[in-house]
Amino acid sequence: MSGDKKGKVILAYSGGLDTSCILLWLIEQGYDVVAYMADVGQEEDFEAARAKALKCGAVGFFLADLKREFVEELIYPAVQCNAIYENVYLLGTSLARPVIARGMIEVALREKCDFVSHGCTGKGNDQVRFELAFYGLAPSIKVIAPWRLPEFYQRFAGRSALLEYAAQNGIPVVQTAAKPWSTDENLFHISYEAGILEDPNTTPPDDMWKLTTSPQKAPETPETLTIEFSKGLPVKVTCEDGKVVTDSVDVFLTLNALARKHGVGRIDIVENRFIGVKSRGCYESPGATILRVAHMDLEGMTLDRNVRALRDQFITIQLSQILYNGFFFSPEREFVTAAIPASQKTVNGFVRLKLYKGNVIVLGRDSDEGLYDAKFSSMDEMGGFEPTATTGFIDISSIRIKAWSRAK
Amino acid sequence: MSGDKKGKVILAYSGGLDTSCILLWLIEQGYDVVAYMADVGQEEDFEAARAKALKCGAVGFFLADLKREFVEELIYPAVQCNAIYENVYLLGTSLARPVIARGMIEVALREKCDFVSHGCTGKGNDQVRFELAFYGLAPSIKVIAPWRLPEFYQRFAGRSALLEYAAQNGIPVVQTAAKPWSTDENLFHISYEAGILEDPNTTPPDDMWKLTTSPQKAPETPETLTIEFSKGLPVKVTCEDGKVVTDSVDVFLTLNALARKHGVGRIDIVENRFIGVKSRGCYESPGATILRVAHMDLEGMTLDRNVRALRDQFITIQLSQILYNGFFFSPEREFVTAAIPASQKTVNGFVRLKLYKGNVIVLGRDSDEGLYDAKFSSMDEMGGFEPTATTGFIDISSIRIKAWSRAK
Amino acid sequence: MSGDKKGKVILAYSGGLDTSCILLWLIEQGYDVVAYMADVGQEEDFEAARAKALKCGAVGFFLADLKREFVEELIYPAVQCNAIYENVYLLGTSLARPVIARGMIEVALREKCDFVSHGCTGKGNDQVRFELAFYGLAPSIKVIAPWRLPEFYQRFAGRSALLEYAAQNGIPVVQTAAKPWSTDENLFHISYEAGILEDPNTTPPDDMWKLTTSPQKAPETPETLTIEFSKGLPVKVTCEDGKVVTDSVDVFLTLNALARKHGVGRIDIVENRFIGVKSRGCYESPGATILRVAHMDLEGMTLDRNVRALRDQFITIQLSQILYNGFFFSPEREFVTAAIPASQKTVNGFVRLKLYKGNVIVLGRDSDEGLYDAKFSSMDEMGGFEPTATTGFIDISSIRIKAWSRAK
Amino acid sequence: MSGDKKGKVILAYSGGLDTSCILLWLIEQGYDVVAYMADVGQEEDFEAARAKALKCGAVGFFLADLKREFVEELIYPAVQCNAIYENVYLLGTSLARPVIARGMIEVALREKCDFVSHGCTGKGNDQVRFELAFYGLAPSIKVIAPWRLPEFYQRFAGRSALLEYAAQNGIPVVQTAAKPWSTDENLFHISYEAGILEDPNTTPPDDMWKLTTSPQKAPETPETLTIEFSKGLPVKVTCEDGKVVTDSVDVFLTLNALARKHGVGRIDIVENRFIGVKSRGCYESPGATILRVAHMDLEGMTLDRNVRALRDQFITIQLSQILYNGFFFSPEREFVTAAIPASQKTVNGFVRLKLYKGNVIVLGRDSDEGLYDAKFSSMDEMGGFEPTATTGFIDISSIRIKAWSRAK
Repeated sequence: MSGDKKGKVILAYSGGLDTSCILLWLIEQGYDVVAYMADVGQEEDFEAARAKALKCGAVGFFLADLKREFVEELIYPAVQCNAIYENVYLLGTSLARPVIARGMIEVALREKCDFVSHGCTGKGNDQVRFELAFYGLAPSIKVIAPWRLPEFYQRFAGRSALLEYAAQNGIPVVQTAAKPWSTDENLFHISYEAGILEDPNTTPPDDMWKLTTSPQKAPETPETLTIEFSKGLPVKVTCEDGKVVTDSVDVFLTLNALARKHGVGRIDIVENRFIGVKSRGCYESPGATILRVAHMDLEGMTLDRNVRALRDQFITIQLSQILYNGFFFSPEREFVTAAIPASQKTVNGFVRLKLYKGNVIVLGRDSDEGLYDAKFSSMDEMGGFEPTATTGFIDISSIRIKAWSRAK
Repeated sequence: MSGDKKGKVILAYSGGLDTSCILLWLIEQGYDVVAYMADVGQEEDFEAARAKALKCGAVGFFLADLKREFVEELIYPAVQCNAIYENVYLLGTSLARPVIARGMIEVALREKCDFVSHGCTGKGNDQVRFELAFYGLAPSIKVIAPWRLPEFYQRFAGRSALLEYAAQNGIPVVQTAAKPWSTDENLFHISYEAGILEDPNTTPPDDMWKLTTSPQKAPETPETLTIEFSKGLPVKVTCEDGKVVTDSVDVFLTLNALARKHGVGRIDIVENRFIGVKSRGCYESPGATILRVAHMDLEGMTLDRNVRALRDQFITIQLSQILYNGFFFSPEREFVTAAIPASQKTVNGFVRLKLYKGNVIVLGRDSDEGLYDAKFSSMDEMGGFEPTATTGFIDISSIRIKAWSRAK
Repeated sequence: MSGDKKGKVILAYSGGLDTSCILLWLIEQGYDVVAYMADVGQEEDFEAARAKALKCGAVGFFLADLKREFVEELIYPAVQCNAIYENVYLLGTSLARPVIARGMIEVALREKCDFVSHGCTGKGNDQVRFELAFYGLAPSIKVIAPWRLPEFYQRFAGRSALLEYAAQNGIPVVQTAAKPWSTDENLFHISYEAGILEDPNTTPPDDMWKLTTSPQKAPETPETLTIEFSKGLPVKVTCEDGKVVTDSVDVFLTLNALARKHGVGRIDIVENRFIGVKSRGCYESPGATILRVAHMDLEGMTLDRNVRALRDQFITIQLSQILYNGFFFSPEREFVTAAIPASQKTVNGFVRLKLYKGNVIVLGRDSDEGLYDAKFSSMDEMGGFEPTATTGFIDISSIRIKAWSRAK
Repeated sequence: MSGDKKGKVILAYSGGLDTSCILLWLIEQGYDVVAYMADVGQEEDFEAARAKALKCGAVGFFLADLKREFVEELIYPAVQCNAIYENVYLLGTSLARPVIARGMIEVALREKCDFVSHGCTGKGNDQVRFELAFYGLAPSIKVIAPWRLPEFYQRFAGRSALLEYAAQNGIPVVQTAAKPWSTDENLFHISYEAGILEDPNTTPPDDMWKLTTSPQKAPETPETLTIEFSKGLPVKVTCEDGKVVTDSVDVFLTLNALARKHGVGRIDIVENRFIGVKSRGCYESPGATILRVAHMDLEGMTLDRNVRALRDQFITIQLSQILYNGFFFSPEREFVTAAIPASQKTVNGFVRLKLYKGNVIVLGRDSDEGLYDAKFSSMDEMGGFEPTATTGFIDISSIRIKAWSRAK
């Protein structure tokens, strides 16, 4: 019988309607299908998904807990260089795709799959991120993207066609009304897009936001915490109640819990997708927002000015674009991240913060690095250098300006 | 008698202790002194200052209202390119110095002054900003910077020496205790530095902040507003109560009032001064903070992706450094700003905002520019282009990645 | 009869075998075809091409002399910012495509064509440059790219199939052996690629090079010339024999003639095409090579250091990529070029050069701009500023370095 | 007696008139002086210099052969990233200063010197390069720069004052006429500046050039060679006569000899010094010029497109400025160079070159890296990817362009 088969496919499976239908359809087309799920911190009933995948006919189901590598390999370099896309988006989905893709390719090679498949639409960023990652890891793998295949997308033109197909195949579908937007969730963030959000002037409804309390409903009482960094990485969080967290995943979960409580980390933007289309997205990145404020603040105290300026221009902007566009497994990503450690050697110290109704307020910071020297910066006393030296500095700095001014 | 004079000096005069003593001292050294004050929106008793300057012996006193040119010539280009220094500081002092310097040079040339003087210390940024601006406008002008002259700074080593000198010369000094920090204020912002702030781990006391209510004391009820932009400039603010403001200075003052009420615009950072010294500064930039959020948001909807990315890298970062370091009157500033209008042609539309206890929340935005097209971005329907085209796009985009992956 | 027609196509026609077959094939498919040729300075028998196009059945033939706009609108901005791709390639083909595309779209709109067609292959840069230009100028135009249509490229799999098709249709084909490479020529350059050049270790044969004498066969006697620039543009060339040229096209032709004689302007590289494929190309850019040397030299004397550095990093690199990748009609190209005039205000003066066997040697240069001031730069005399000022300059410049060194 | 001494100085000594007078003068001022010479490949009579220093009264003389560390630690990273200042200058002097300064500081610490001194003028780059390097290595060291001390430069206002002072102190001075320019030489290059060169329109006399034959007098017969690179470094040079060189210093000396013979590596420019003054300089960088051509060519074949573009924009330009301005021992230099190895992993292969009368002509190149794939790039055959994929690529790439064009 397997002689008739077209080969083996590993499918990025979510347990939802779309990927269940894709699973069924792939089998119908003559493929053996292995379902793959990654636990990157999203809220999900993995056991139910496993049962559903097998019921759909999957020849295998693989669940991988990738939370630690997600945090340590993807999120941490992003934290170290304050990665941000178009000044606003903290890249939560972009960061998760490479670890998921790597997990899939590992199973694909082990299970001798010839194909990789996913349920991403043909207009978004995630199809690109998945597939470029697949190709970067396994350049000869073949991709099946049903939502870009006319025989699939013409057959399943709306949600009802999918529901009907699932029912015909005896696949139970939870009969809740679909939310009028779609989401992607992991321990770094949740995204909301499509549906009613496609009108950029529509304010998202209050009940859309899932990972954070509304600032208006957040506690009246602020809460403080201290984050300690070593080489630009958050190695210790001390909460107001004295609780101390040091494990990399726990640090993230703890910051998420604090930020959620205090309404920190919501954004609502129109962004530019890699394919050149503008798109409206809303995001909650609770812990990540706290970390970004703290890390940037500590860099003010501990990072050399010129390193910071070069890093902002060379690494931050470039890496953010590379991640957003899906080129994590690429020579340019390897090149750009190679310089991160050299930029973070001195980023050691702590930042004291206050959370209050959506605000992350810096209360103070300190470091033993010694790059901040009150004696030098003090306006109130001599110290560090002679005031007359500054006259020379300005004289020389103005040579070029005077020449230009005279020439005008 | 004037034959004995060393010449005429124009002094940037504030009415405070330092510049009054400098005024007296310059006269003592044999100079004729013209006192100059610029109204850039700071809270000041200009008439008292005039009286004091003349009592000190100034041969003239000039007060110039520079608010409009400050807003339209300095602040607006900064708004258009989202200028920010080290990701945090909105450049309020840096933006005011060039208009003040230009005002001084205009009077200096008219009044035939040979020298320009100021009360900036020998360790800060403002001495550089003032003097580079002076030289860029009048390359042959001579600068007297008393705080860098040993004969001055050794004589007036502390506040008490200044107080005594003033008293000796019959200059009344308000006998209030000096605040344990120094400030610089204009309609864009106020800065706090030095004194107790030189310990970067000291939280600024609540009563330091002057231009904004504390988020904790701000109203429980949010307030909405709409800002309309034309070519990247805020041309109309519509308040929740229906009040409409269109004048450039009024727009700023209105946004300041709203932000002040709702606790918007405080920051506390360690930054890198131009002379290479790290320094702790606190700032309130109320209206500017709202404007920045709104302008960046509208750019998401109206600015081409590649223009935005190039602008961020080429103009935003560069112009911010140029302004911070005091090179406003320079060939590089003229060069960099020459490209701003081309980047803002399409930044037309409005942004709806909500202010609430320190938060500036985007509620929605719209534009007639047509760069956002829901048909193209919709995840829920075909439209704009064929999904199969994306397959080709990914195939071609991955050629380079596959080649690299195979070569590894 | 026209009711059966599929519509009207304008075809970028060269008179060669490929585009003649495409012309025939388009007619066979039911299109009316208008043939378009642009004179951008290439060596071509335009009349023969016209006759052939009409014999093939074209319903119209249009020839446009675009040499002047090619020089003044495309080449000149490139000269002003020293445009170069990957440090080596002067962008000759990239610069010509936009003017040709614009010429075609003008005729297309006038002649009410529904389609634009070209003979570019499916692997090169020129298909992209043409089509992006078409879409940038006429976003609703439809493109027929036969070499990417299976029904075409499978039918005409080799040169013999094309020859046979031409013969069947009574189209005379010059029976010379095809050169083992392909070329693109205009007044800026000629390119050679494909065929035997696809082995990057094969030295191009001597008789390939068409626009320049071999350095080894160039005259033993050097020849001098002077180029005068105004705002970065070459406004006057004075030859050794006293001949003076000022017209923009003549300047180019004159420099081409001189460079050709003295073996100037050959390169042989492996470059990266926009689609991500590496490709070997050889180029002759005779006059352009002289101009580049002269313009960069004069900028040394007349352009402010910081403007030059910013321009190199942000305009030169960006514009070169934009041109190479075919995005001339794009918002980013408009943005980037908006800053060019501000960078060239002071680039006025002349450069004296010597040409000799492949070398372009600068003999001297001068300018009235005054940015170069021997008094300031002289090592042999005091002048311009006090040596003690430099001590202050170094003291301040080293604050940051000392802090870092101590912290290590 | 030593109780009267002001302390111990290490002096960068050249054996020439200036530094001999400085040596004498420092002793006269009450310092013990240690003379230091570095052999960085310049042509010099080191033994005569030793004798002269000791005759002047130096308490010690140290000569260090730094050629290998100069090549391997300074020159090689510059080669790997094609370092160049203002598009023309290969940074020969800038590269030598850090190794010399490091050599001096090593001896200074060992010999317990309190001061470092040098003979650089107060207007040039080298004073800055030396002193920033001193401070970066030994932040508490004190610098004596006689040419910036009024008591020195006023006393020795011209060459005759120095000659007289030397004679008075019994120091023999070679009575040759001084050349009307000054030079700095090492195994990478020689520079010429000042004197008659300060008129930028004066063509340097033929007999100025020292390290290269004039192209006009170079052999009529070309000469070929092959350079093999490993990770971007030249590991093997094979000459036309079969001679093979692999040692790092020998590679440089061999390339120098070949370039010298064939007139390769002369330039004549106006450049911008760090202090903001324009300056005319002539340089010969013979072997370095060959290496640059070869390395850039091989990168075309072996370096990923995006890595190359990012490296050009962020490493090449930045490192060149850092080196030129004297910030080798700085956090930003460490940061920038940290990314170089990641950019050169694939730069392996060889380049075949021909030298002829000033020209460095690439004859071919090859590599086993596999990033160049004739099957993909071939215009003459299908292969690598489907032509239809390019249609999708262009469709998607034009979405943004069409939207912009429609919006106009």
